[in-house]
Amino acid sequence: MTLLVAIRGWTPDAWIERFRRLAPDLAVLDAREPYDPAEVTHAAVWKPEPGLLASLPNLRAIFNLGAGVDALFADPNLPEVPIARIVDPNLTARMTEWVVMNVLMHHRQVAARADDQRRAHWGSRPQPAAQDVSVGMMGLGVLGRDAAEVLARLGFRMTGWSRTPREIDGVECFAGDFGLGPFLERTDILVVLLPLTPDTRGILGRDLFARWRRENHMGGPVLINAGRGGLQVEADILEALEAGTLAAASLDVFETEPLPATSPLWSHPKVIITPHCAADSDAEALARVIIDGVRRESAGEGLAPEVLVDRQAGY
Amino acid sequence: MTLLVAIRGWTPDAWIERFRRLAPDLAVLDAREPYDPAEVTHAAVWKPEPGLLASLPNLRAIFNLGAGVDALFADPNLPEVPIARIVDPNLTARMTEWVVMNVLMHHRQVAARADDQRRAHWGSRPQPAAQDVSVGMMGLGVLGRDAAEVLARLGFRMTGWSRTPREIDGVECFAGDFGLGPFLERTDILVVLLPLTPDTRGILGRDLFARWRRENHMGGPVLINAGRGGLQVEADILEALEAGTLAAASLDVFETEPLPATSPLWSHPKVIITPHCAADSDAEALARVIIDGVRRESAGEGLAPEVLVDRQAGY
Repeated sequence: MTLLVAIRGWTPDAWIERFRRLAPDLAVLDAREPYDPAEVTHAAVWKPEPGLLASLPNLRAIFNLGAGVDALFADPNLPEVPIARIVDPNLTARMTEWVVMNVLMHHRQVAARADDQRRAHWGSRPQPAAQDVSVGMMGLGVLGRDAAEVLARLGFRMTGWSRTPREIDGVECFAGDFGLGPFLERTDILVVLLPLTPDTRGILGRDLFARWRRENHMGGPVLINAGRGGLQVEADILEALEAGTLAAASLDVFETEPLPATSPLWSHPKVIITPHCAADSDAEALARVIIDGVRRESAGEGLAPEVLVDRQAGY
Repeated sequence: MTLLVAIRGWTPDAWIERFRRLAPDLAVLDAREPYDPAEVTHAAVWKPEPGLLASLPNLRAIFNLGAGVDALFADPNLPEVPIARIVDPNLTARMTEWVVMNVLMHHRQVAARADDQRRAHWGSRPQPAAQDVSVGMMGLGVLGRDAAEVLARLGFRMTGWSRTPREIDGVECFAGDFGLGPFLERTDILVVLLPLTPDTRGILGRDLFARWRRENHMGGPVLINAGRGGLQVEADILEALEAGTLAAASLDVFETEPLPATSPLWSHPKVIITPHCAADSDAEALARVIIDGVRRESAGEGLAPEVLVDRQAGY
């Protein structure tokens, strides 16, 4: 039972320390150092070097340190072993916090109120109640459904869009290419929690913005993306903001992460940026979930079905 | 059936126009112009001149344009007629929007994230989940209970404090002077939705801040007041912010409104100010509720019990 830690983008040191401390009985290897590929039975990865996993002849399972598995599927030599998506037990609650907060910040005109405060201006602004504002949820998986439930409780009119048809209490649901037009027609604030697949890549681009027109108290359509950066075309978002077809945006994910310091998104007055932290994980809790998964799989119990990635669907 | 409109603090013109347009059969008088006091049967008021209501010999009922009736009770000659508190049908939902948004903005460190964005800095910050953060609700009336329900749904640990003991599912409740200490000990974010009474005036002052110590990811205790300005001592809030015993505040109400342009609160980096708009009303809806109330009272049906002010309790 040997766990290889192969993490790129973040520094793996804290993860290696955590695994060794929490599971002293487990052999933990660092992919940045020399090791014997034949020893590795399990891998804990984030965006591993393409080909690395194929080089492990005795690999039994892959633990992906996050919800997004698009980087794994981009590896043409991805071995045919089970893949578990490891997410924080609070992942859904954290994402819902971020989504609800951003919806409310646009709805309650926080940016304009902050300008008023800077000018010591005691002003009034027309402010509809939530029941007169439509929030459209793109992506109706666990995350989208939970955020939609809280937004509905706050009074927002909820619509939803997904690739395949869904039915959710209190949410008017649309599906597929055919449903996208009527969905956008009803949407003041678009919340995007889609997975990144060949079908969804770049979906938040010029074509979608051209079809999306709404008049509202926020000055037009508002985009909130906490799905994946590859869903969006940042040049098109900036163009739509300049043209006024998009009124504002909250973005937690980007085409390139970290977002380059040269990106004009950083200083755009209508854009709220957070550094891919909408549902930041509690690392200790994640490490424990992976250790349990390694033990369970080694004992022949397989991976828990709720964490298994569907290779067919690509997410 | 004659309605006197006596509004101070806001301009009454729009209200008079609204009443005349929505109820052409109703005689509507403007308190700023000469009128015969004996004609007046009903009054729609906001902070009316003390003594004005006592000068109306045929007054049958008072409609207060908002939830706060402390200005009425400050009039020693307030006549003994029923008083209705007229609130927007969406008042509770609007207040919950504002409270939930402000709790999330402090919890998710929006001010620090905005600083990062200004510096084009892609940084990480320790961020507990809501389940590790305690929100204390001061005031457990309709507004406090609704906001507490949504905050609990988001995962926050909820405690509550009220003058008289209450029991609420999912909220650890404390009451009276005796309960204030243990309540504050558990509170990271204090949300204040108390009515203003002689007992609560100035309660958010030096004594309370001296008893309230918490270590958390926000740098200490956070105060959110959307109750009444008279609950707070602004000099003490500023002092506690300077001393670091209070980490931040969101204030929608103030000792003097509009908040004077000279107040140091406007430019304080740890203070979010909104101009008493947390639960801003839809004026058309309020005018309709008052017109219905006048008709109902004139027809001998009395005022709806749910809007009647309890003169004994003072709110």
